[in-house]
Amino acid sequence: MDMHHIGIITKLSDPRALEATRQMAEWLHQDGRRVTVVNEIAQAASIPKQCAARKVQEQLPEGQDMVVVIGGDGTFIAAARAVEEVDVPLLGINMGRLGFLTETSRDDMFEAMTRVLAGEYRVEERMRLSVQVLRQGRIPLTCRVLNDVVVHKGELARMMEFDVSMDDQFVFSSRADGLIVATPTGSTAYALSAGGPILHPSVNAILLVPICPHTLTNRPIVVPGIGTACITLTANGVDRLLTLDGQAGFALADDDQILVRRSTHSLRVLHAPDRNHYTILREKLRWGE
Amino acid sequence: MDMHHIGIITKLSDPRALEATRQMAEWLHQDGRRVTVVNEIAQAASIPKQCAARKVQEQLPEGQDMVVVIGGDGTFIAAARAVEEVDVPLLGINMGRLGFLTETSRDDMFEAMTRVLAGEYRVEERMRLSVQVLRQGRIPLTCRVLNDVVVHKGELARMMEFDVSMDDQFVFSSRADGLIVATPTGSTAYALSAGGPILHPSVNAILLVPICPHTLTNRPIVVPGIGTACITLTANGVDRLLTLDGQAGFALADDDQILVRRSTHSLRVLHAPDRNHYTILREKLRWGE
Amino acid sequence: MDMHHIGIITKLSDPRALEATRQMAEWLHQDGRRVTVVNEIAQAASIPKQCAARKVQEQLPEGQDMVVVIGGDGTFIAAARAVEEVDVPLLGINMGRLGFLTETSRDDMFEAMTRVLAGEYRVEERMRLSVQVLRQGRIPLTCRVLNDVVVHKGELARMMEFDVSMDDQFVFSSRADGLIVATPTGSTAYALSAGGPILHPSVNAILLVPICPHTLTNRPIVVPGIGTACITLTANGVDRLLTLDGQAGFALADDDQILVRRSTHSLRVLHAPDRNHYTILREKLRWGE
Amino acid sequence: MDMHHIGIITKLSDPRALEATRQMAEWLHQDGRRVTVVNEIAQAASIPKQCAARKVQEQLPEGQDMVVVIGGDGTFIAAARAVEEVDVPLLGINMGRLGFLTETSRDDMFEAMTRVLAGEYRVEERMRLSVQVLRQGRIPLTCRVLNDVVVHKGELARMMEFDVSMDDQFVFSSRADGLIVATPTGSTAYALSAGGPILHPSVNAILLVPICPHTLTNRPIVVPGIGTACITLTANGVDRLLTLDGQAGFALADDDQILVRRSTHSLRVLHAPDRNHYTILREKLRWGE
Repeated sequence: MDMHHIGIITKLSDPRALEATRQMAEWLHQDGRRVTVVNEIAQAASIPKQCAARKVQEQLPEGQDMVVVIGGDGTFIAAARAVEEVDVPLLGINMGRLGFLTETSRDDMFEAMTRVLAGEYRVEERMRLSVQVLRQGRIPLTCRVLNDVVVHKGELARMMEFDVSMDDQFVFSSRADGLIVATPTGSTAYALSAGGPILHPSVNAILLVPICPHTLTNRPIVVPGIGTACITLTANGVDRLLTLDGQAGFALADDDQILVRRSTHSLRVLHAPDRNHYTILREKLRWGE
Repeated sequence: MDMHHIGIITKLSDPRALEATRQMAEWLHQDGRRVTVVNEIAQAASIPKQCAARKVQEQLPEGQDMVVVIGGDGTFIAAARAVEEVDVPLLGINMGRLGFLTETSRDDMFEAMTRVLAGEYRVEERMRLSVQVLRQGRIPLTCRVLNDVVVHKGELARMMEFDVSMDDQFVFSSRADGLIVATPTGSTAYALSAGGPILHPSVNAILLVPICPHTLTNRPIVVPGIGTACITLTANGVDRLLTLDGQAGFALADDDQILVRRSTHSLRVLHAPDRNHYTILREKLRWGE
Repeated sequence: MDMHHIGIITKLSDPRALEATRQMAEWLHQDGRRVTVVNEIAQAASIPKQCAARKVQEQLPEGQDMVVVIGGDGTFIAAARAVEEVDVPLLGINMGRLGFLTETSRDDMFEAMTRVLAGEYRVEERMRLSVQVLRQGRIPLTCRVLNDVVVHKGELARMMEFDVSMDDQFVFSSRADGLIVATPTGSTAYALSAGGPILHPSVNAILLVPICPHTLTNRPIVVPGIGTACITLTANGVDRLLTLDGQAGFALADDDQILVRRSTHSLRVLHAPDRNHYTILREKLRWGE
Repeated sequence: MDMHHIGIITKLSDPRALEATRQMAEWLHQDGRRVTVVNEIAQAASIPKQCAARKVQEQLPEGQDMVVVIGGDGTFIAAARAVEEVDVPLLGINMGRLGFLTETSRDDMFEAMTRVLAGEYRVEERMRLSVQVLRQGRIPLTCRVLNDVVVHKGELARMMEFDVSMDDQFVFSSRADGLIVATPTGSTAYALSAGGPILHPSVNAILLVPICPHTLTNRPIVVPGIGTACITLTANGVDRLLTLDGQAGFALADDDQILVRRSTHSLRVLHAPDRNHYTILREKLRWGE
């Protein structure tokens, strides 16, 4: 794939990310590439006019061959949402410590970019989950996540109750603080803190992890990626919420059903060919020590 | 100890508990005991006037030699709070399934009462925790708990950050959903769901259990009962709450410090002499199967 | 598939299994089926000569359309090994409590058999793992397992050390009591006791669970079913063993490598169409209570 | 306490420990102290004759005011066993990475020693466990441990079965790989790998941690330090062993009972006054990162 037109999505609140964005835009411009950023970033990063086209937030990405994400895992998740419909691949550059998603460090960003432009990269497909809330015959929410969708109790509730089924097969009832439904990518995020296993990104499966379950035998379950999980809220009058990729809250109502299945829109991520997922796991989880 | 004057505290919303309360009041009256209940319970349970004195909520217990608690573990915790200052021992009668705190079943309540009145009982001291919130030199909250005090993130917060120290010795910093500080009694409540160990009630220790810690090596810790735990909130601008015995929420502010230490006021609980804590654990956790 | 010729494999030491075997042989004989059992079982169960052909152990199964397994999960695993090369489907009948593998109870065995013979069944493919030990250029062991292969320290060793890689990608080094490599079927066996997640049998993945790892961040990992796991023993002079489906021990030597990958020979299991895996999980793990 | 006569116990197989031992002996000698080491160490470390008295292994310690332990946690445990009867306090110097028990680094050893000799130290009492095996009215084994006693299955056994009671109160039956009975000191050793909590050394309690329990609700339990735990082997014909502080194996027999209680002989450990247990935990478990 020829990477001629390149977008950059940046963490606006991080001066170092803005500085790196300006350098990257200039470097790409000098290399003869077409660069696009959103107005706010262009201004905040003082990117010279000739180096990059400007767009308003809603128009990026559109027409780019790839997007460079400069920030942390949170910025990467936001960028993944931005490319949901246009299917543009992402390259993640982290500004500080290694991220599970932004694996290229700032110091290596030009070398990584050089290799990507030379075609020396690996494209990895990352599963997304498609989420729908069913409420009395309507669908008040539909969206996609890269990491996880979490159904959880509100702050004053003592516990929530729910049923889980897979493709109309009843799996279990639970009383717990909540339930995490995660992609393999999300298995190293919140699900890991809640006691879940690590799933390699290429496993075609969905991970269910109950949060602080009252029933001690409720364990994390890995179900086939081709199925649809349905969580039904069973106790009434309790505050319950949906959190999507850790970035948004949605208030649930009595008898709501939350449907989660593998999205047909996977995210494409660009990797250096010599980096593999286990390397990142080892560094992040300090397995080597 | 002579058990002449007996109070009854009942779960008002449970008709079976009210029925049992009426029967118990009549039975005690016929046995020549003096009985006291609060007005609401007396009316809801249709207790004959001559069988029991009435009090308003705030006056019970006062002057009783013991209090019978008829309901579930939640009712027992409320009763434990009611007897905080007067140090009256409790006997718990459960209406449904066995509770960790209400170990006598409804069917056995007269037999248990007969034995208690005959002096055939064991008094167990249960540790309470004393909790104080320090905020800019003031103490906006001070209270006691029987099970646990939980510092936790609000519903829209992604995570909270805090430091824990014991008697001015720094223990650890953590990013987590929250932290449970529990008595041995509370070790079988929320702390168990969060992955904590079980502590026998006679162990003089306090249990700290992080909830979904980001740092995977953060483990439950058991610290001496003579120490004072201090949790300091370190990240600003995040919703955080205090939950006390699962029954009350208190909004925390930036830089709040939560001090937790063993209360000098232990709760006294009456037990049948042939019942021990391990029997209850086995039944509740289904170890025998 | 027409089920004309039916083998029976039975737990020899269980009189109730033998009794059930005799009844099943007679019932199948009267139904006009051809039945085969091994000599020892035929004698121990006093099966009438005309009801079933006899074979020596090594000749069963051979030519059968299906095999009925009467016993517990251990008997089923032995039967699974027996049909490795001939690819005959199994139906499991348990004699006592529900097994993960022997899901039909003795009371239901004729009803289940009737449905199977009427074609009312579901065939499920269960992954097997292929295991090879590499030692100085030779392969002293090669075999297949249905549940798991466990590399573990000998009884006097304090700990073992090993490296794990997947398809030549280094995953982690560990010091632990051992490592479980399990199929989805095996995820509910030993791996569950060691803290692993549950994998639905139709997930194409292999589960790695370290046993009592010294490194607290070593977590269970789910890797793609198409890969090859390689465990390399790294510390010398330590007793280490291989256990295969919990039924055999094989002494390992310094520098041994254990290769584990999905076998091309899956096991076929016959199920009643109204039974699903989650039903069995719920009953076995008492999730409903 | 005046520290005039000082013993040194050293890891014989570690040249750096031997070198440090020679330096320490010379340093103490020049400071006018009386030093004693065993013959093997004196020779291996080439300690000048005038610097230290020699003893055979069995005679050290005897008459010393303190013992310096130079090695790792394993050496410290061996030294703790050596001072069991004579109650001499230990100071641990580690040669490599920080140990839970040997908290002073080699670089700091003279500074630490200077402070100890000046009386600037804290003496900490560490609980030991007293272990007895009862077999048909006899006691084939009696000993003490500093970390833990582990009852576990032999290498070819699939599982072991046992009952646990505390002071004649039945606690639970279990099928598991084994059971760890640990002191608070031992809570950071093997018990931590098996999923147990951390106990502060000053908590007067004993920790029971089942190893890979078949019953998923079997959890780590913390019981009072004043009680006696009794583990009774219930299944026959299975290989089972006792491991004491990770350093010795003892073959168990059918119906053996293992009694474990707090020893009246605590170990005394010398600490720098500015070091506390949480500092060591944080460094060892990398909580700060």
